[in-house]
Amino acid sequence: MNNLIKLVDNGLEKFLPTQEPRKLFDSMRYTVLLEGKRLRPVLCLEMCRILGGDPQNALAMACSIEMLHAQTLIHDDLPSMDNDDFRRGKPSNHKIFGEATAILAGDALISWAGQNIIKNTPAPAELRIELLNDYFTAAGANGVIAGQIIDIDAEHNSTLHTEENLEFIHTHKTGDLFNLAIISGAKIAQAPQSEINKAQHFAQIFGLAFQIADDILDVISNFNELGKTLGKDQQAGKLTYVTLYGIDNAKCKLTCLLNECDNIINEYNSNILKEIIDGIRKRTGV
Amino acid sequence: MNNLIKLVDNGLEKFLPTQEPRKLFDSMRYTVLLEGKRLRPVLCLEMCRILGGDPQNALAMACSIEMLHAQTLIHDDLPSMDNDDFRRGKPSNHKIFGEATAILAGDALISWAGQNIIKNTPAPAELRIELLNDYFTAAGANGVIAGQIIDIDAEHNSTLHTEENLEFIHTHKTGDLFNLAIISGAKIAQAPQSEINKAQHFAQIFGLAFQIADDILDVISNFNELGKTLGKDQQAGKLTYVTLYGIDNAKCKLTCLLNECDNIINEYNSNILKEIIDGIRKRTGV
Repeated sequence: MNNLIKLVDNGLEKFLPTQEPRKLFDSMRYTVLLEGKRLRPVLCLEMCRILGGDPQNALAMACSIEMLHAQTLIHDDLPSMDNDDFRRGKPSNHKIFGEATAILAGDALISWAGQNIIKNTPAPAELRIELLNDYFTAAGANGVIAGQIIDIDAEHNSTLHTEENLEFIHTHKTGDLFNLAIISGAKIAQAPQSEINKAQHFAQIFGLAFQIADDILDVISNFNELGKTLGKDQQAGKLTYVTLYGIDNAKCKLTCLLNECDNIINEYNSNILKEIIDGIRKRTGV
Repeated sequence: MNNLIKLVDNGLEKFLPTQEPRKLFDSMRYTVLLEGKRLRPVLCLEMCRILGGDPQNALAMACSIEMLHAQTLIHDDLPSMDNDDFRRGKPSNHKIFGEATAILAGDALISWAGQNIIKNTPAPAELRIELLNDYFTAAGANGVIAGQIIDIDAEHNSTLHTEENLEFIHTHKTGDLFNLAIISGAKIAQAPQSEINKAQHFAQIFGLAFQIADDILDVISNFNELGKTLGKDQQAGKLTYVTLYGIDNAKCKLTCLLNECDNIINEYNSNILKEIIDGIRKRTGV
């Protein structure tokens, strides 16, 4: 796991080097390079390896997904959104660089990450177009942003606190990037459609498990572990697994999903995936 | 000209239809569909036609450039940026939909426009990749956003009011999208490299002329004509052609540039381009 994280960290440094305008790139690099678990890029690389591909071929894609993830964090933390002063234990982007620069850095990352896919993925033109298409879908108005807008709408609006909306938020706000990571890894490995379908199934379960874990951690974790302000979901009247079903039901659901993940991982025979799943178990205590 | 504007308006409606999440798409469509001169997409279509291509093939690209332009307007108008309450004579996006939605709508447009290029441009994979690469370059940290960040930095900071910075802001903040429009039109027409170089030269001169005109109009126009708050550049301590050189020098420079445009247009034999140049002359009184 640590080797893969190092590979990703080096990739991010290489694909997003310092340059002019300095302030803009400093702001982009600040959040992208914050120490993190690099879950999404690691999943992309590992899925590529499991299905017979060379992880190096997926490195640009993996790093672009992490850049896009950083973009969503920068904009989510803005005062007009979740208004969060901390991220991964450090001040949020706009607390360091100001709101205007944080907005522009986020905008720039969307394009930078997309361009990185085209320029640095060693794959035929048709496959690069397919990867970009998947990237845009995940990043855009039918992907992460669709989830984010419903998430914001549902704040302090209990009439929107329905099972359907919760599923929508989870599927898009969190699931779409995990899905992109896992599926693109499989596609870069040029895996057959049957394997891609299986990867899709795994992505769906894993994404949901991750989000439920995140909802639980907002309640039970502490600042040092999570690196961001805690208990914000409840305070902001957010629609989460915990606010809708209660902490015990959330933990129960999470246990089931992680067991399902185990079954798939056994087939993949991947220590990395096992480590990720066990990490979620440990942090949430399920 | 009106026919081309109509073609673009229909294209925007077709490529960005209403859908769920409704609030997000309403916000995206609000600024994209505001009545406008559609200069960038018209330039793209017309350049394609001049160089022997079918403008229909350039319609998706032209509309994507207009969507990207709308994205920059939405984010530029935000309180933490230029803080402008009006755009094209109507309330700015965030005045209608709120800041959070306006930020997300802008983000979504970057991806939506990019995806529209891949999905709806009838061209070989290699050319679509080249167009996307150009799109990302224009949209990103070395393009429009580079210009915007220096523009903001230079506000109320007269040590940054240099000729070099002014050129940088103009080249990127305004020039890059005109450049993208003109060059992509030429590329979709599959014009030879010599013609693309010529188009590049035209784009450079036209982009600069347009920005100087914009700087002049901020001083001499009125709200009904311009549709946005006037005199803001001076008030905000912005670095513009007018604040650096004075209105007379700006007009003089504009006259020269428009004459240069005339020379190129005569070779192209395009009534549309002629109409655009004459329009700038009329509005600025040069």
